[in-house]
Amino acid sequence: MKKIVVIGATGTLGQAVAAALKVRHEVIEVGATRGAHRVDSTDPASIEQLFREIGKVDGIVTATGKVHFGPLPEMTVEQFWTGLRDKLMGQINFVLGAQRYVNDGGSFTLTSGILADEPIREGASATTVNLALEGFVRGSAIELPRGLRINVVSPTVLVESMDAYAPYFRGFEPVTAARAAQGYLRSVEGAETGRVYRVGY
Amino acid sequence: MKKIVVIGATGTLGQAVAAALKVRHEVIEVGATRGAHRVDSTDPASIEQLFREIGKVDGIVTATGKVHFGPLPEMTVEQFWTGLRDKLMGQINFVLGAQRYVNDGGSFTLTSGILADEPIREGASATTVNLALEGFVRGSAIELPRGLRINVVSPTVLVESMDAYAPYFRGFEPVTAARAAQGYLRSVEGAETGRVYRVGY
Repeated sequence: MKKIVVIGATGTLGQAVAAALKVRHEVIEVGATRGAHRVDSTDPASIEQLFREIGKVDGIVTATGKVHFGPLPEMTVEQFWTGLRDKLMGQINFVLGAQRYVNDGGSFTLTSGILADEPIREGASATTVNLALEGFVRGSAIELPRGLRINVVSPTVLVESMDAYAPYFRGFEPVTAARAAQGYLRSVEGAETGRVYRVGY
Repeated sequence: MKKIVVIGATGTLGQAVAAALKVRHEVIEVGATRGAHRVDSTDPASIEQLFREIGKVDGIVTATGKVHFGPLPEMTVEQFWTGLRDKLMGQINFVLGAQRYVNDGGSFTLTSGILADEPIREGASATTVNLALEGFVRGSAIELPRGLRINVVSPTVLVESMDAYAPYFRGFEPVTAARAAQGYLRSVEGAETGRVYRVGY
């Protein structure tokens, strides 16, 4: 039994990840604006405060992050920054800031997404951020101390999100959040590091 | 004969790219702190000012950008931001901000680097930024209007940089800047878009 903190646990994907982990582990669910524990992932001070409250853990899962979707010819620099601040650094901040709160042999599991591999219209910021996350995992896996591991899960679009996203994902086969959650189990309970776990594609 | 602006033209790689392009094209060389034309790539207003001076072009080449190198366990969030602001957005800013200054059928050519594919110690920020750039090219290539193309050149370490970088790149075969410059010719004079041109690896 491990102690795992799930950041973004109130979201569609985060809920499914927390539910899958709870079968065998102690799970601390953290939301941005809801729940007993909250964190502003874009603020290193807020992350530090969270870990002072919850103490050391065996794993950190981040299933959170906003990016701006919009036509490239009209995208502003400021809109592009949203994804860098939120989905990209909102996950990397945990690795840079909370390493010492993860026990020896513990794991980080980040979230990218299918747009890393399969670009869609209005998705240039998402493709950038998702591949950046995969780059961070590739680069940091060889440097983490104390047997710490780091992986990233890249799910295709979720069944639960198709109401909102279907027009962007014509021809993509969605997976349930429960199935996407299996990628997180592979990372948390497996032995690999530096991996991208693609789910549903 | 095309009119091509080379950003970072005073650097080792930029000089070689400018020299290779000059054989057949009009080249406007732009530096950060030296030369007749200067630009602060991190500042959209400075980019706008540059193109007001030089007018429309057939291609923009960016061969510039700083990232922080250092051990991951000690890397601060602020150090990590350096690469996002400078090498990543310092190139993307031209695509978002200067599209209307590029003639129909023109091209953007960005610069990533071998660390996108081959991580090294102290290079987590570089691997992140380089893959982010490749993600941006993948995502934006399908959306650029008017036949505009975008590619990225990913050279291995340069012969000219080995004095400073050799300890980080043991076992890597370096290429000359003149050879790396050939990747930029493929992008500027070729017909492809969304490509990563790896040079020397």
